[in-house]
Amino acid sequence: MSINEKILLANRPQGMPDQSTFSMQEEPLPVPQAGEALVRTLYLSVDPYIRGRLSETKSYAEPYQVGEVIKSGAIGQVMESTDPKYQPGDIVAGIWGWQRYAAVDTSTLRSVDPKMAPITTALGVLGMTGLTAYFGLLDIGQPKEGETVVVSGAAGAVGMVVGQIAKLKGARVVGIAGSDEKNTYLKEQLGFDATVNYRTERDLKTALEKVCPNGVDVYFDNVGGEVSDAVLSRINKNARIPICGQIALYNLEKPDQGPRIQSLLLTNTALMKGFLVGDYSKGFPTAMADLAQWVSEGKIQYAENIVEGFEHTIEAFLGLFAGDNLGKQLVHVSDVTK
Amino acid sequence: MSINEKILLANRPQGMPDQSTFSMQEEPLPVPQAGEALVRTLYLSVDPYIRGRLSETKSYAEPYQVGEVIKSGAIGQVMESTDPKYQPGDIVAGIWGWQRYAAVDTSTLRSVDPKMAPITTALGVLGMTGLTAYFGLLDIGQPKEGETVVVSGAAGAVGMVVGQIAKLKGARVVGIAGSDEKNTYLKEQLGFDATVNYRTERDLKTALEKVCPNGVDVYFDNVGGEVSDAVLSRINKNARIPICGQIALYNLEKPDQGPRIQSLLLTNTALMKGFLVGDYSKGFPTAMADLAQWVSEGKIQYAENIVEGFEHTIEAFLGLFAGDNLGKQLVHVSDVTK
Repeated sequence: MSINEKILLANRPQGMPDQSTFSMQEEPLPVPQAGEALVRTLYLSVDPYIRGRLSETKSYAEPYQVGEVIKSGAIGQVMESTDPKYQPGDIVAGIWGWQRYAAVDTSTLRSVDPKMAPITTALGVLGMTGLTAYFGLLDIGQPKEGETVVVSGAAGAVGMVVGQIAKLKGARVVGIAGSDEKNTYLKEQLGFDATVNYRTERDLKTALEKVCPNGVDVYFDNVGGEVSDAVLSRINKNARIPICGQIALYNLEKPDQGPRIQSLLLTNTALMKGFLVGDYSKGFPTAMADLAQWVSEGKIQYAENIVEGFEHTIEAFLGLFAGDNLGKQLVHVSDVTK
Repeated sequence: MSINEKILLANRPQGMPDQSTFSMQEEPLPVPQAGEALVRTLYLSVDPYIRGRLSETKSYAEPYQVGEVIKSGAIGQVMESTDPKYQPGDIVAGIWGWQRYAAVDTSTLRSVDPKMAPITTALGVLGMTGLTAYFGLLDIGQPKEGETVVVSGAAGAVGMVVGQIAKLKGARVVGIAGSDEKNTYLKEQLGFDATVNYRTERDLKTALEKVCPNGVDVYFDNVGGEVSDAVLSRINKNARIPICGQIALYNLEKPDQGPRIQSLLLTNTALMKGFLVGDYSKGFPTAMADLAQWVSEGKIQYAENIVEGFEHTIEAFLGLFAGDNLGKQLVHVSDVTK
């Protein structure tokens, strides 16, 4: 095949994005220039943060431009390279995004060793996902032995790593997710102490009171909205609240209203902090070594939800907002060749 | 006079407290037991945080019990003492609260040196008020040279110290207060760079945009509510927000609703933290030395609003919620005797 296919931002969505937000473009295979490698995409990552970049409003990452390819994490195999560091056949990770092929600046690539772990983990637990969980929980949340850690979006890629690291640190871990199936997985496979199904509980505060009898010391927030209102009503003195995502809000068309939380932070002398994993880049090597060790020892397990075929990328992305995914949502685009 | 007068909590208020919240009691002068001193009150402190302790609900300090004297900071003169550390005639500060006389555990007293500064400063800039400003701003806010610091309740006792310390650290300081007279004082007497009158501005966000053209790096929040909503809409990347008080909310009868702020904290990777000065007690000696030096050098000025007469204590307290006070609100109860 000598044709590249790319998914572009066609229109900025108001509220929930849909197929019409994007457009597909065909073009000849790109030719790598000096310092670039031609890469064939193996797996694509679709992530909630991409929603923020579809809008023009201020976010922590630059908005995509209309007509631009959707950039996200990806794993690929090198086809041609102008950089001796990368040879044809090598597996690499980068952020060239939603396209079948790309000519990529090799300084933005990193090597993926298929012998160390399945290559998809480079987009998940041994990639930005794992690092996000690691720094948000350990730098801001700082769970101590015996404390109660609550994580929302617990069955998402970040949430399930957060819960497992918190368990490693000796905390009691409560996950909030949107289906009984997910919650069973969190408890039986990942060792969460308790869970709450936010879709079926009629009174979230009461449900949380039952599973957090000693209150909440750390709340790792992936979702925002009413789920977070309920958790915040249960925080303890000196609670820490890393804000990682607000998926419940990304597609709202009106300003999000709820109870103001400053009084709760004041009376509990609690800390809340938004964070971006990129701000921790100096600590990546140490964090990656820790994560790799925990994965190799089986102390951290991971789940992937893999959609087959580049043509289903947009559906896979939209499914994130329906809560379809258990763990990391990936798209399988092509296979490794020898 | 051999009769003591005390102000007690009579009824827990719903919403705004009034005279009927309190009752006056007369009793014989207390007799100091071993380890106690009999103290005659010179000045009383009335503070916004007292409102929280009138309610039964969880706050950062224990609720007062119905029938109990209202405890708050006070300055007095020792009349009798069972502790050789304190002699009759000594000036002391403590927290025996709203009564003309008290038998006080001497371990809870500290000496006040009338030669160092006016004794009333022991309840203000050289007491909990100054320490609150110091730790909230320097530990959580951490203003850097050239940054913009916004303080609400700027003409209150804490707010005016916050602004002046921020100026000492090289920041640009914007105060929010409720009258033009207060704002003139902040700019002309205390060196604030700009001010906003939140009562007369129809559009607070636009007003803040004018006075904070480079956004807000530190927001020291004394008030909460819509004033804070407006300031938070202007925060910069990596902003720090110490939550010191929420006076706009203390008398609300319904849960306080407003725009949820987690998305702003996330996209700006901002930090918000409630704090209580008592948690910083290890640092008090250093902080007090800094504050005393700045006051003696004239780098920090202070304002006091002194109501004459114990019988006006309740009025002075209620006036805090009407925004009557410029600086520290005190009640003058009796004079120092030789």
